[in-house]
Amino acid sequence: MDNSVINNYIELIDKGFEHFLPNNKTNYSSVTESMRYSFLLGGKRIRPIILMEFFRICGGEGNKALPFALALEMIHTYSLIHDDLPCMDDDILRRGKPSNHVVYGEDIALLAGDGLLTHAFYTASSARDIPPQLCLQAINVLSDLAGYRGMIGGQVIDLQSEGEQVPIEVIDELNLLKTGGLLRAAAKIGVILAGGSPEKIKCADNFGKYLGLAFQITDDILDTCGDTALLGKPVKSDEKNDKSTYVAFYGVEKCKEIVVDLTNKAIDCLEKIDGDISFLKELTIELSSRNH
Amino acid sequence: MDNSVINNYIELIDKGFEHFLPNNKTNYSSVTESMRYSFLLGGKRIRPIILMEFFRICGGEGNKALPFALALEMIHTYSLIHDDLPCMDDDILRRGKPSNHVVYGEDIALLAGDGLLTHAFYTASSARDIPPQLCLQAINVLSDLAGYRGMIGGQVIDLQSEGEQVPIEVIDELNLLKTGGLLRAAAKIGVILAGGSPEKIKCADNFGKYLGLAFQITDDILDTCGDTALLGKPVKSDEKNDKSTYVAFYGVEKCKEIVVDLTNKAIDCLEKIDGDISFLKELTIELSSRNH
Repeated sequence: MDNSVINNYIELIDKGFEHFLPNNKTNYSSVTESMRYSFLLGGKRIRPIILMEFFRICGGEGNKALPFALALEMIHTYSLIHDDLPCMDDDILRRGKPSNHVVYGEDIALLAGDGLLTHAFYTASSARDIPPQLCLQAINVLSDLAGYRGMIGGQVIDLQSEGEQVPIEVIDELNLLKTGGLLRAAAKIGVILAGGSPEKIKCADNFGKYLGLAFQITDDILDTCGDTALLGKPVKSDEKNDKSTYVAFYGVEKCKEIVVDLTNKAIDCLEKIDGDISFLKELTIELSSRNH
Repeated sequence: MDNSVINNYIELIDKGFEHFLPNNKTNYSSVTESMRYSFLLGGKRIRPIILMEFFRICGGEGNKALPFALALEMIHTYSLIHDDLPCMDDDILRRGKPSNHVVYGEDIALLAGDGLLTHAFYTASSARDIPPQLCLQAINVLSDLAGYRGMIGGQVIDLQSEGEQVPIEVIDELNLLKTGGLLRAAAKIGVILAGGSPEKIKCADNFGKYLGLAFQITDDILDTCGDTALLGKPVKSDEKNDKSTYVAFYGVEKCKEIVVDLTNKAIDCLEKIDGDISFLKELTIELSSRNH
């Protein structure tokens, strides 16, 4: 696929981030340093890219959706910082680097997560080139899907499922909320900010659901068969933490089939939206065949 | 002062909260229970009351500002849950009851805090009877003053000041950010949502600053001379944690004088706003002479 499109988006995200969270020296700069550290560890920037692509496809102009793209990535980043804390997954490695709390201490890492979550809404509400009622609707969707009815709810089910035999329906709900939450938000918010119709918002939502499921099952497969060096984090962590996953339930081969099926369903949703979906289609396929 | 006004507000807040965070049974209800537990411990509800009073004084109608009042109190509540965690102040008692993590465990308490912070923005962005551009402006102010340039920044300075001799200017900055952050937000947002002028927003901001300083110094005095039973939390915690406070710097008697001076300055700011300020004036005086 065309990596120059991805690289342009990544450059835009990095520049936008510098604008909204500059490296200033203050009496509280330990927390801004810590916020910057985790955000700037990089990552695939999938969520903001999906948001900006949906915005473009639905007729949105230029980089007007960037504040929301940044907000979404800040929320994703905060969730990783809090997930890695000793009272949660207790992971010391993230993207091949020491986790936030390993570098800054647990107290500052906790506050850096809180800070990124709060700053996400500051950044989103600073969008100036989008009609206010659309911004408000997008903030409503973002806070819903990042909250207890979305990502946080999924995280809770994940914690409670450790060491338990949970039915596949609960694993589905877990994946849909925990991983699907922000991917649904990405797609929906892109359409909303561009002023897209309720039908298009619905297609984007379904796209996010299928992609979320496919993405998480691929993650589980990589945790079983992947390479620590490529992943930048230890493998077999699900087994170590006795987590309920699709792989534990269906085995790797069946899971690969399920991923293909979900990917096709996600693409079907895309094709219901008028516009140049070629890049998003490639990205969707790439994500389900990734090795990291 | 007229307690029926306060009781009416508290009833409104409790009802509104039930609407926005009902006691539903779900696969993730441990986190919603935990969120509800801390919110419903009560407290003085000062911030939402100040917000609704400023809204009323500046010509706002009915309970239209309630979603923002609830949002502010959710943010205050999340900050208390995270403050009490073992990696922060490690407090096992809050408002005379076991802290959130003592009841629900550290992992759920962490997520309950994250959940309340996120749900605050969901609740605020659900306000339907206020013009969208005013809601957006209010969300911008809320996220700024609750974030690293506000409450979180103050929390960071507080952590870093433990066991250190810090200059009085830094204690001022700490108090202004940590305690003043949400009080400034309360006053400013009330005016903003009512469509008040920039001059009135400025007066509200200054009111919040003076009240924030007075409130924190009163807290410090109570921590030195107060009564555990009335406060619902252990006294001398500042001394135990070796915290830099006004009381450690100036002593109790001088601090009481400073509180009177700050209270008068806060009232001066109120008097620059046209409207029926009598209740807010009484509340301001009451807060600086409280014993809990």
